[in-house]
Amino acid sequence: MDDDDPRLTLHPDRLFPSDPAERSIARRIHATTCDLPVISPHGHVDPQVLVDDRPFHDPATLLVTADHYLTRLLHADGVDLGALGVASGPLSEPQARSVWKHLCEHWDLLRATAARTWLEAELVELFDCSVRPSARTADRIYDQIAEHLGQDAFRPRALYQRFRLSVLATTDEPWDDLSAHRALTDDPTWSGRVIPTFRPDRALDPARPDWPEAVARLGTAAELDTADYDGYLRALEARRRTFRAHGAVAADHSHLDVRTEPLDHAVASRIFHSALAGDVSAAEAAAFRRHMLFEMARMSCDDGLVMTLHPGVRRNHHQPTFERFGPDVGCDIPIRTEFTDALAPLLRRFGTHPGFHLVVFTLDETAWSRELAPLAGFYPSVYVGVPWWFLDAPDAIRRFHSAVTETAGFRRTSGFVDDTRAFCSIPARHDLSRRVDAGVLARLVAEHRLDEDEAVDTAIHLVTTLPTTVFKL
Amino acid sequence: MDDDDPRLTLHPDRLFPSDPAERSIARRIHATTCDLPVISPHGHVDPQVLVDDRPFHDPATLLVTADHYLTRLLHADGVDLGALGVASGPLSEPQARSVWKHLCEHWDLLRATAARTWLEAELVELFDCSVRPSARTADRIYDQIAEHLGQDAFRPRALYQRFRLSVLATTDEPWDDLSAHRALTDDPTWSGRVIPTFRPDRALDPARPDWPEAVARLGTAAELDTADYDGYLRALEARRRTFRAHGAVAADHSHLDVRTEPLDHAVASRIFHSALAGDVSAAEAAAFRRHMLFEMARMSCDDGLVMTLHPGVRRNHHQPTFERFGPDVGCDIPIRTEFTDALAPLLRRFGTHPGFHLVVFTLDETAWSRELAPLAGFYPSVYVGVPWWFLDAPDAIRRFHSAVTETAGFRRTSGFVDDTRAFCSIPARHDLSRRVDAGVLARLVAEHRLDEDEAVDTAIHLVTTLPTTVFKL
Amino acid sequence: MDDDDPRLTLHPDRLFPSDPAERSIARRIHATTCDLPVISPHGHVDPQVLVDDRPFHDPATLLVTADHYLTRLLHADGVDLGALGVASGPLSEPQARSVWKHLCEHWDLLRATAARTWLEAELVELFDCSVRPSARTADRIYDQIAEHLGQDAFRPRALYQRFRLSVLATTDEPWDDLSAHRALTDDPTWSGRVIPTFRPDRALDPARPDWPEAVARLGTAAELDTADYDGYLRALEARRRTFRAHGAVAADHSHLDVRTEPLDHAVASRIFHSALAGDVSAAEAAAFRRHMLFEMARMSCDDGLVMTLHPGVRRNHHQPTFERFGPDVGCDIPIRTEFTDALAPLLRRFGTHPGFHLVVFTLDETAWSRELAPLAGFYPSVYVGVPWWFLDAPDAIRRFHSAVTETAGFRRTSGFVDDTRAFCSIPARHDLSRRVDAGVLARLVAEHRLDEDEAVDTAIHLVTTLPTTVFKL
Repeated sequence: MDDDDPRLTLHPDRLFPSDPAERSIARRIHATTCDLPVISPHGHVDPQVLVDDRPFHDPATLLVTADHYLTRLLHADGVDLGALGVASGPLSEPQARSVWKHLCEHWDLLRATAARTWLEAELVELFDCSVRPSARTADRIYDQIAEHLGQDAFRPRALYQRFRLSVLATTDEPWDDLSAHRALTDDPTWSGRVIPTFRPDRALDPARPDWPEAVARLGTAAELDTADYDGYLRALEARRRTFRAHGAVAADHSHLDVRTEPLDHAVASRIFHSALAGDVSAAEAAAFRRHMLFEMARMSCDDGLVMTLHPGVRRNHHQPTFERFGPDVGCDIPIRTEFTDALAPLLRRFGTHPGFHLVVFTLDETAWSRELAPLAGFYPSVYVGVPWWFLDAPDAIRRFHSAVTETAGFRRTSGFVDDTRAFCSIPARHDLSRRVDAGVLARLVAEHRLDEDEAVDTAIHLVTTLPTTVFKL
Repeated sequence: MDDDDPRLTLHPDRLFPSDPAERSIARRIHATTCDLPVISPHGHVDPQVLVDDRPFHDPATLLVTADHYLTRLLHADGVDLGALGVASGPLSEPQARSVWKHLCEHWDLLRATAARTWLEAELVELFDCSVRPSARTADRIYDQIAEHLGQDAFRPRALYQRFRLSVLATTDEPWDDLSAHRALTDDPTWSGRVIPTFRPDRALDPARPDWPEAVARLGTAAELDTADYDGYLRALEARRRTFRAHGAVAADHSHLDVRTEPLDHAVASRIFHSALAGDVSAAEAAAFRRHMLFEMARMSCDDGLVMTLHPGVRRNHHQPTFERFGPDVGCDIPIRTEFTDALAPLLRRFGTHPGFHLVVFTLDETAWSRELAPLAGFYPSVYVGVPWWFLDAPDAIRRFHSAVTETAGFRRTSGFVDDTRAFCSIPARHDLSRRVDAGVLARLVAEHRLDEDEAVDTAIHLVTTLPTTVFKL
Repeated sequence: MDDDDPRLTLHPDRLFPSDPAERSIARRIHATTCDLPVISPHGHVDPQVLVDDRPFHDPATLLVTADHYLTRLLHADGVDLGALGVASGPLSEPQARSVWKHLCEHWDLLRATAARTWLEAELVELFDCSVRPSARTADRIYDQIAEHLGQDAFRPRALYQRFRLSVLATTDEPWDDLSAHRALTDDPTWSGRVIPTFRPDRALDPARPDWPEAVARLGTAAELDTADYDGYLRALEARRRTFRAHGAVAADHSHLDVRTEPLDHAVASRIFHSALAGDVSAAEAAAFRRHMLFEMARMSCDDGLVMTLHPGVRRNHHQPTFERFGPDVGCDIPIRTEFTDALAPLLRRFGTHPGFHLVVFTLDETAWSRELAPLAGFYPSVYVGVPWWFLDAPDAIRRFHSAVTETAGFRRTSGFVDDTRAFCSIPARHDLSRRVDAGVLARLVAEHRLDEDEAVDTAIHLVTTLPTTVFKL
């Protein structure tokens, strides 16, 4: 190690406000939450990783290739996604080193991004790195991480314990056989809690080219005939029951908008059959999707699955990238999203249904103060989802609390959700959130808008009873 | 009283920034405004309360049941609006105690909301409470408030004096006989100033089922035949004159949007008659409403009433709640609102008319920097309304100044408007605003963007000459 | 000079955060950038001013009449634009004094606006003023400025040197003969760099009444027949080449929206010819404009000119003012603007084209976190333009960094652009930006999200390599 290279350290006061009064309060608040278990009620980790419990393959695959926050920024700075191993098979050692070097060479690109904050925490806390990534230090850091990954303490199950995870939700296709979840449940040597989430997007949107196939797979999985509309509905209900039986607490939906308009049964049935026959207009397909989102709320009222919404993203904005590398590689771009009118039919029917929970996330932060906080401040079913994806970052989290809390308080929000497929980033993401929340609460105390005992109680509530209540854990 | 219960106190530095330099400047600024009279140019207090000057009925009716900021949040947390006395008749003593207890039991729900800040100030400053509300303390606090309400010093007229109100505007239907206002004016023992505001929404929107009735009542009140369009226009003009004669300074309008498009007289007349006959399309009804908003501007130019706009709310979003409890119980939800194009026809014709004042409020805060500040920074008639309703809260007020002031300065805003039907909250609302404004100005001084004498002058201007000028008081 | 008049001073810590830790870091960061050369890659200074190098006419014309930031606010406060010399010929000395007095009398109107911050810096740093403008001091300040303007050191070329300008881009019609630029290049006594910018708006929008004339002028300038569509395209290409040959690095586009949809050649050609014949619908005209914006991207890929977008302004919102005073006098008002879908066709085709640069500015700040940062964080071609026009102010710049940086970092932004026609305000605008950026970076350091050496490196990058890279200087 070279004394000339800049250090990489984690300051104990990182992410707290600079004002001394706020900072000292924030320290005290954070001290009460920093060691609490991590509840992860929505995310995208592959459960098979925990079933297999094999060592992670290499530093680059683990920390770079699979993380679209990083690959997208490197791509913007001129690095081809192919050179980052995206959508290729397992990386050879020289390939992995090369990917890792790309990241380290572009380290300054990440300045002040949330992605860097998470990554720094992983490097220091998990892998004992103490030197700032750069072209000079890339290989040394690679070696250090690789050495750690070879240890038993760095296999997935050990990390699950180390991360103090008390529950980890995955996201699964409705026809998933849930064998990984079953394998974990059936394994007497495993004591964690990994639960599936019902995510039926592909089966609900006739505008998708793979919708007929999705409907068929749904039928196969449910052992029901989905060639007609009623069978299709029954298959969805059946698969939701199966998910529940495997521990699922939520059904998640990510469409372009959240419009929810019920159709007459005859109309829905007609569109369903036309669409299966390949004869559906864009307007009919959208109408059917909006009808089915309404139906999903009805089913949630019946079976108790929490309904979560992640709308408003134009997926695969750059078609050539999608064609070459597939989905989820960093070219999804948000659009403006409307909630007040879109959700009105659903909320008219189910908004005060006992036990119905609807958690609404958005990438259009203008909706926080204008629509979501007012909705969650009236409907017992509605919770404002915490900042998501591009907005899951310190300043955006502060804007979220500022926009939502004055109208809806803290208890009408979802509690933190990491929403990640980057397993090793989970503790860093939760800690970032806890630190920023501590600072937000500290400001309220310093401005004498909240007593400190209330702030502490709120901070603890936000990471314990709030998520367990909202997600029915 | 139990020493174990947490205290309820008002810190003298509450709502000031934590930074010591900013805080000490904020203190000095606030000291120059905190004792100035309260001007309330827009609100919803029932003037009959001041005519009758009877003691308030009970703590719950006064502070909870009538305050939709509180009832909506309690409803969201699972308390039925019926259990809060909403839309029931006068509460019995046990009922009132029960309502009050619901609030106290859910006190933590209100953390960091503006509603709590107002309520705390009322409890401490008005009712000498010194203990934090909770299930344990609910009855004690109830008794203490009830005891106060029985005193002469807590009857409405005494409070009007105590609140240092110099003017209080009410909001009134166009056919209101204004007898309460006349009774006050004619009462030699009353020295306050309570003025009506002309609010003709129901008479301007043929899409409302009660529009024909509103048109008829307008005619009756004006003693003019409103069965034809010209008579309808003359009746509106006549009622505006009557309001002016009773001290009104403003006409207020709250429609879904602020589009203003004049129709030919023949077209307007035709829609008017069709609509009265019950034969009007949604598009025609909207066109007529937008035409009438334009006509309202014309009349304001003629008679001098300040035109104020409160648009962009989907009223009674939850239809079942409306059917059971009526309007204004907490389920109005904002929507996105456009101003630049919507107001263009009105401003083209009247935007530079001498003496015309147009005060534009919004619940869509995105319009502040993008549309309203640019409009108010050019048109002599346009003033940006201060944060309204869900946005009338410390952080939102800071965002407002940040978004508006750099483009339009302070003088193109409306001055504070409490917009409340909760009489006892008026001083708390104005003090919150003065404190936050002091902090906003203090930051500008601390950043050397404004001299302190200018900040003091601005703070005083915002609560004295600005509202009297904008509202022609 | 009267000791009773308030002083006008520039505090060395102005625009830095008040928090002592942040402030001291901000001071150190700003010290590394404050003396660096000024790069102005987009603005509206008339190059002929530098060719002629004549003394500026008078203080009012220089500092008030030509600055629509000031005239619009004075107009809002009741001063007729005519009384400010707008759209009149050269002012007589009494007229100029009167205009100047209007400004000084309304000095309090400008409190906390960016316009005042710039003007104060000019008054103190350039003209040695030490007294606050007011009715009392107006004449004295006028005399002082006039005295300075008579000195050789205040002639345009001397100021160009004094301002440390290293490059100054102008904005020019596509048929401009660029004689002023050529005169400067050919002048052996001139060592500055003044470059044209290709701004073809009037030639691309058949909805404009002057479009046929623009097409004809384009043909004349290019010495090509623009009576047919292919000639028109060739003329645009030719003029872009001519601009490049005269040093241009960018083509700038300011339309109502940024929709970019290519038409078939036959369709485009048909609309072109219909429009020239005066027979074009609004929809066809818009389709042609959107097609041509796509074509402009194609040409930028071919010839290397950076493409910059300044959309979303309703020009001449107050038609009577436009008719009396012409464009650019302060009544342009922003509207909501969509980017994700609007730019999708352009980015699908050219978003990853090597060397293509697309800089996107907005007056709708909601797009920063929702659309522009995500776009710039994926597409190598896209850069988020810094805050523009109404948003070029301290708090708005902070909001910009907060909204953009966590997603896209600093390197995917444009670097500061002053966009001004007020020559003397250029250093003040750049210094404001450098000061606010120093404060933004200081906060990140104080919150331990960035090391101080990284913050300094970023601050320098933002005013040196970033603009030279983005604008290919």
